[in-house]
Amino acid sequence: MKPVCLIIGAGAGIGGCVAKRFAGGGYHVVLSRRSDQNGLDRLIKEIQQQGGSATGRLANAVEAGVIENLVTEAAEIGQIEVLIFNLGAQIGTRTLAQTSLKQFELGWRMACLALFRAAQAAMPSMVKNGKGCFLVTSSTAAVRGNEGQHAHAAAMGGRRMLCQTLNAEFGPKGIHVAHIVVDGAVDAPDTLGKLIGPKNFAQLRDTVGSRDGLLDPNQIAESYWHLAHQHRSAWTHEMDLRPWSELPWWNDKPLPTAKI
Amino acid sequence: MKPVCLIIGAGAGIGGCVAKRFAGGGYHVVLSRRSDQNGLDRLIKEIQQQGGSATGRLANAVEAGVIENLVTEAAEIGQIEVLIFNLGAQIGTRTLAQTSLKQFELGWRMACLALFRAAQAAMPSMVKNGKGCFLVTSSTAAVRGNEGQHAHAAAMGGRRMLCQTLNAEFGPKGIHVAHIVVDGAVDAPDTLGKLIGPKNFAQLRDTVGSRDGLLDPNQIAESYWHLAHQHRSAWTHEMDLRPWSELPWWNDKPLPTAKI
Amino acid sequence: MKPVCLIIGAGAGIGGCVAKRFAGGGYHVVLSRRSDQNGLDRLIKEIQQQGGSATGRLANAVEAGVIENLVTEAAEIGQIEVLIFNLGAQIGTRTLAQTSLKQFELGWRMACLALFRAAQAAMPSMVKNGKGCFLVTSSTAAVRGNEGQHAHAAAMGGRRMLCQTLNAEFGPKGIHVAHIVVDGAVDAPDTLGKLIGPKNFAQLRDTVGSRDGLLDPNQIAESYWHLAHQHRSAWTHEMDLRPWSELPWWNDKPLPTAKI
Amino acid sequence: MKPVCLIIGAGAGIGGCVAKRFAGGGYHVVLSRRSDQNGLDRLIKEIQQQGGSATGRLANAVEAGVIENLVTEAAEIGQIEVLIFNLGAQIGTRTLAQTSLKQFELGWRMACLALFRAAQAAMPSMVKNGKGCFLVTSSTAAVRGNEGQHAHAAAMGGRRMLCQTLNAEFGPKGIHVAHIVVDGAVDAPDTLGKLIGPKNFAQLRDTVGSRDGLLDPNQIAESYWHLAHQHRSAWTHEMDLRPWSELPWWNDKPLPTAKI
Repeated sequence: MKPVCLIIGAGAGIGGCVAKRFAGGGYHVVLSRRSDQNGLDRLIKEIQQQGGSATGRLANAVEAGVIENLVTEAAEIGQIEVLIFNLGAQIGTRTLAQTSLKQFELGWRMACLALFRAAQAAMPSMVKNGKGCFLVTSSTAAVRGNEGQHAHAAAMGGRRMLCQTLNAEFGPKGIHVAHIVVDGAVDAPDTLGKLIGPKNFAQLRDTVGSRDGLLDPNQIAESYWHLAHQHRSAWTHEMDLRPWSELPWWNDKPLPTAKI
Repeated sequence: MKPVCLIIGAGAGIGGCVAKRFAGGGYHVVLSRRSDQNGLDRLIKEIQQQGGSATGRLANAVEAGVIENLVTEAAEIGQIEVLIFNLGAQIGTRTLAQTSLKQFELGWRMACLALFRAAQAAMPSMVKNGKGCFLVTSSTAAVRGNEGQHAHAAAMGGRRMLCQTLNAEFGPKGIHVAHIVVDGAVDAPDTLGKLIGPKNFAQLRDTVGSRDGLLDPNQIAESYWHLAHQHRSAWTHEMDLRPWSELPWWNDKPLPTAKI
Repeated sequence: MKPVCLIIGAGAGIGGCVAKRFAGGGYHVVLSRRSDQNGLDRLIKEIQQQGGSATGRLANAVEAGVIENLVTEAAEIGQIEVLIFNLGAQIGTRTLAQTSLKQFELGWRMACLALFRAAQAAMPSMVKNGKGCFLVTSSTAAVRGNEGQHAHAAAMGGRRMLCQTLNAEFGPKGIHVAHIVVDGAVDAPDTLGKLIGPKNFAQLRDTVGSRDGLLDPNQIAESYWHLAHQHRSAWTHEMDLRPWSELPWWNDKPLPTAKI
Repeated sequence: MKPVCLIIGAGAGIGGCVAKRFAGGGYHVVLSRRSDQNGLDRLIKEIQQQGGSATGRLANAVEAGVIENLVTEAAEIGQIEVLIFNLGAQIGTRTLAQTSLKQFELGWRMACLALFRAAQAAMPSMVKNGKGCFLVTSSTAAVRGNEGQHAHAAAMGGRRMLCQTLNAEFGPKGIHVAHIVVDGAVDAPDTLGKLIGPKNFAQLRDTVGSRDGLLDPNQIAESYWHLAHQHRSAWTHEMDLRPWSELPWWNDKPLPTAKI
């Protein structure tokens, strides 16, 4: 029986590419995403055509019980050895006045509470199994708060600390928790494409993207695979990823009055 | 007319001492705390007896509209020049299994959402006034997640990032937002005393406390005063505070196999 | 007898303003700088005319024995209660190829080795006295390495870690070590003025400087004073300083493709 | 012709294991270490017996010209595609008084200056080639300064910032610079074994080591391999590594008065 890799947030970007990578590597992947049944069906079919094993269904992770059910269903297929937590919470740039209480709360429900619930649901069986892996997609907003990112940064900052508390409790029980700081624009129609619009997205792909200047989600997936298979004597708990041509978040971009 | 300093979370620790310090420095302080009318009355009386000016009422900050009303009421007394956000979210050490969804959510409501709401309520008038100051009490859990701190760290990590997004938007409008990392045990009956119990607390005071080994909230208040009155050409956005005898959170305590 | 405040790097910027602040507050200040006897004389005279007490001499801190002698001489005047370590190591923006081994080494000698030597010279008497304070001026380059800052960042990164090891050993002995991240351009003819040239500097002062958009070293000095007089129950070990209108180093400046 | 991987600091720990991993993966590895000709010969022989290609010689990296010559010699064999910079600078735990100027300087020469020189020597050809990879072994002391680590932390803190300035200049030219924080004890006779003595080392191996509680350098080498082969659209610039059973440096170890 194949080990199971459960992916919460399996769209056409990082989640989908990780799904293909892990299915190709011998896992049965269980996929969930909030909407787009067609997209989900295509992804499952693509994996199966390449000889992989995949199932999945639509699921709104912020609704009560939904994540818990996903974990239960996946566990019926096989031991969940890897859980990819890939829910985003980006709503674009908004001033404080433009950010509603509802948006602020929804960000937290997706970025933070859903991870907490996924951990509560999946950890007991991983502990019993003596091993397991939680890979948590995160963003630059988890390590610094930019203008217009009130909801996103508050949500992701909580996510990062939660990864650390999970690791502190479950690392010594054999569960590897890794927080992955995606520090750049991902070549993903489902997220970046929707955020900036199809026209801007197409233009971005044609310019920087054509020079590997966007994060290729298939390449991100290689690092997810590596993290999930690090030997337990040498685990990584935080990994940053960005394109070669993009300076890290901590650097000033070249400006006349750049700080030194 | 005195400038107003609104304190959300004015108990017998940091909040109360900051209240006394700012009242002594010429502010009218508006106090709120969730419970203990007697404690609140004593604090107001003490301030008035020392020639200061204070008002206040009980208020449960996580209820809808409450923070907004506090800000409105305070603004009727005078321009809010300083807002001290001092709500804690510590629930003690609990494993993941012992942490309820309700506790996890309450932590976020106090640490994160309440700050967001306070900012939405108070910033417009500060912007109009061209100046203002938000001092946000925070904790070590905002910068690293220890075992058993799932709810607290997730909440405080969000709070820290929110302070950064607020600063990014409002700093250039003249509003100073400072995040204060209280990195040690505070000599405060209302918080530490309740957390570890009166007996342990008394013992702690008699031992390390007698050697200034607990954070004295009156001394913390001096740094709050300093931050609130830094000239706008030289603002601090993050300040850490701990007792002299305590190593910072980033240090290993002396152990045979300590990392080097 | 007045307590002594020894300032290593007392030019016309932070060092000189801190000197005036501490002399005004009752210290005898001992000043040293590498060059410009006239500038030093003017500073001493200015302090004395305001009723303060100051002595000093030129000294090249990177030469063998020089810092040690400065500490010895200052200690003969009185107990050194505060040591302000204010040597900079900025050489402007240079590519790797443009940075000589000599420059790279000199940066380290000023930023790192000189601090190590100052600590070796001054700590024993502070420990004997049961108290003391080391305030170390530092820069953004201590927390992140920008393009063209090879020598400066390597030097300042070492300085920051050295402040932490000094604090770990000497904090529990009553010596307060604080690392101050000056995260912006300082209105100082001796450093910024020389770095960008008198014409650019004059222009900068007339534009952003006139709106408090440059760090005013007299205001920085207020925070140095505060740090040096924090009660030992509530010490700060790292403080950042920047002008209100300038975003912190961790923020993207507004750009079309800013990271979120 | 095989691509060349130059390893500076190829002892019996991380350096040697990385050498075997990269030789096994198709590189010609060029090895250097300061002493132990026999150890070096054994390593080369072992690699050759497994079908790999390796050469090398003893070299004292802190002497003038030595690193530059190593780079020149390696480049004569083939294009240096990967440079592993693996010089340590640990001298054990020493108080400030016990740390000599000479030790402090030597730490910097190994950790910081040698990396600067290696970069000056190797970057031009990598830039010409349009690609290349610098993997820099580092330690917890690069991100926080513990008691007794004055020389080590100052040196490693500088190394970390230098990695960032190198990346800022050379990333956009196709050179991948990664800083690797080895946050735990490595199962390595040449470094840890010498530091704590053979008896303690043997005991450590028998206890925690037998449970994968020491960092296995062969497993570390897998992550070096991964980093060196990340696609340029998704590079990592800082990676931490530690054993599963060890809490990260940022966590308190369980203690009665642990910070929360």
